[in-house]
Amino acid sequence: MTYNAKAYSVSSPTSPFVSATITRRDATEHDVQIEILFCGICHSDLHQARNEWSGLMPTVYPCIPGHEIVGRVTKVGSAVTKFKAGDLAAVGCMVDSDGTCTECKAGFEQFCPNLTLTYNFPDKHLGGVTYGGYSESIVVDERFVIRAPSNLNLAGVGPLLCAGITTYSPMRHWGVSKGKKVGVVGLGGLGHMAVKFAHAFGAHTVAFTTSPGKKEDALRLGADEVVISRNADEMNKHAGSFDFILDAVAAEHDINAYINLLARDGNLTMVGAPETPLPVAVFGLIMGRRSFSGSMIGGMAETQEMLDFCAGHNITSDFNSRS
Amino acid sequence: MTYNAKAYSVSSPTSPFVSATITRRDATEHDVQIEILFCGICHSDLHQARNEWSGLMPTVYPCIPGHEIVGRVTKVGSAVTKFKAGDLAAVGCMVDSDGTCTECKAGFEQFCPNLTLTYNFPDKHLGGVTYGGYSESIVVDERFVIRAPSNLNLAGVGPLLCAGITTYSPMRHWGVSKGKKVGVVGLGGLGHMAVKFAHAFGAHTVAFTTSPGKKEDALRLGADEVVISRNADEMNKHAGSFDFILDAVAAEHDINAYINLLARDGNLTMVGAPETPLPVAVFGLIMGRRSFSGSMIGGMAETQEMLDFCAGHNITSDFNSRS
Repeated sequence: MTYNAKAYSVSSPTSPFVSATITRRDATEHDVQIEILFCGICHSDLHQARNEWSGLMPTVYPCIPGHEIVGRVTKVGSAVTKFKAGDLAAVGCMVDSDGTCTECKAGFEQFCPNLTLTYNFPDKHLGGVTYGGYSESIVVDERFVIRAPSNLNLAGVGPLLCAGITTYSPMRHWGVSKGKKVGVVGLGGLGHMAVKFAHAFGAHTVAFTTSPGKKEDALRLGADEVVISRNADEMNKHAGSFDFILDAVAAEHDINAYINLLARDGNLTMVGAPETPLPVAVFGLIMGRRSFSGSMIGGMAETQEMLDFCAGHNITSDFNSRS
Repeated sequence: MTYNAKAYSVSSPTSPFVSATITRRDATEHDVQIEILFCGICHSDLHQARNEWSGLMPTVYPCIPGHEIVGRVTKVGSAVTKFKAGDLAAVGCMVDSDGTCTECKAGFEQFCPNLTLTYNFPDKHLGGVTYGGYSESIVVDERFVIRAPSNLNLAGVGPLLCAGITTYSPMRHWGVSKGKKVGVVGLGGLGHMAVKFAHAFGAHTVAFTTSPGKKEDALRLGADEVVISRNADEMNKHAGSFDFILDAVAAEHDINAYINLLARDGNLTMVGAPETPLPVAVFGLIMGRRSFSGSMIGGMAETQEMLDFCAGHNITSDFNSRS
């Protein structure tokens, strides 16, 4: 059983988004049907719409992106316990996983080999591919639906499901907390959330940017210091001093310049993924037992924890809205 | 006050080692004088003798290498408490540090900004550079002298002070233990010790080698499995399965092939340092929150712990002896 929903759809790498009608499944036993109130526009959405990841994940057209979804529950399946109609709810980058593998059991659904992404991924229910949040309605298994807080501006909650968890998770994993010195490289969708979290965790927060024009923004977001990364002298002043650096830059850049800023046992985690391999000077890792890592969104329990943390600390994503 | 000691000395990048006489200081208050019984020949010694690290650490000639030293205490200074004449003692890569910086206080003398290496490093006592263990005698501050066990073949103890601690330390740091799957890349001086330690720690130990001829050696050293790394099928069978990989290869090689073998939260630590940066595919780190690290020898307390562990588990380095 299915129903129709309006959506913004793109039909080729070069065509504009147009209004379209898509088919959604009726909520089955474990499903939650959500009226979408806001959906963030993630840079991934644009990459996918333009088929710029054709090697890794070719785009199936028509494509309906969107994985930063906030809305109100309109219907729940008979076995659903976490939600009822009228609740605020959120959906991020994933809508299903096998639930039985070691990753799922450990709370790392994002690494499940049988993961289903929110859009452009084989749809097990209807065939074809999944359709994302550029739509008026979505139906998702309750395991992949997050309770959304009522005290935050919902327009700024959507991006927390992607940019929020992507930056929150590695900071928690690598122990960002009061007394630590933390750097954030790049001040876009991910980086600006990282600055907010590092500040909320009580760390001494340093924002790195190539654009002097972003300095005031960084301070407003919660940075204690701003370093213009093109200035070698400014960079050198921080050599060997960081416990953790989160790098949100997807373009190629000199990663060794940042690795050299880490203290002993410091970690640099990439959440942006440059297309070509980054040359890493091993000597910089050996000196100080430093490590260079990656991280990808977070599991569902941690995503809920992140959103609860945001509710408690009044944290949302900055946004420009359009209707 | 000084005395003369015989040594093997090299006077230029191209000249052979020759017998020579060097000057040693008399033991001061905190010093231990050691009659050297064995000294390992580390590959670093050859790099240094041949001035192959001219960019990083130019060789001062005459050069007397050697930082895998085992011997018997012949004299101690008035303030020395850990040693007395007749004790077995060992000296590794360092002979001094400031003792007051945060690294020293945390037991990481190897990262002290005022470290003195055992050879080819400014000698604070006599001027010139320090002279290493290719000598009949050495004088070292007791903080940098390790108690050597009497139950091991001393010829196989020297390399523990370099290859031993270099492989033991990162394995301890990254939690190598029973139930973990551990890989060792390269089966030379460092790698063969890593296999012995991984096995002694109870891990399922997999040795990677390009040389099928080393398979029997690896099994004898304690490997549970041997993978010929040139065989892509063999490699793929282990994808996503390792908790820890220690990479002891200093030559350029495809590090991403090993990163892809790591399980979620797996770590690959380099103890070899290729001269040119290694291209690291960030996507491989992001998938599975993997990390890529380096490690350099170990602090003095941990070096003693390592040697005590070796004594308890009857572990020595393999060796070919020459007198």
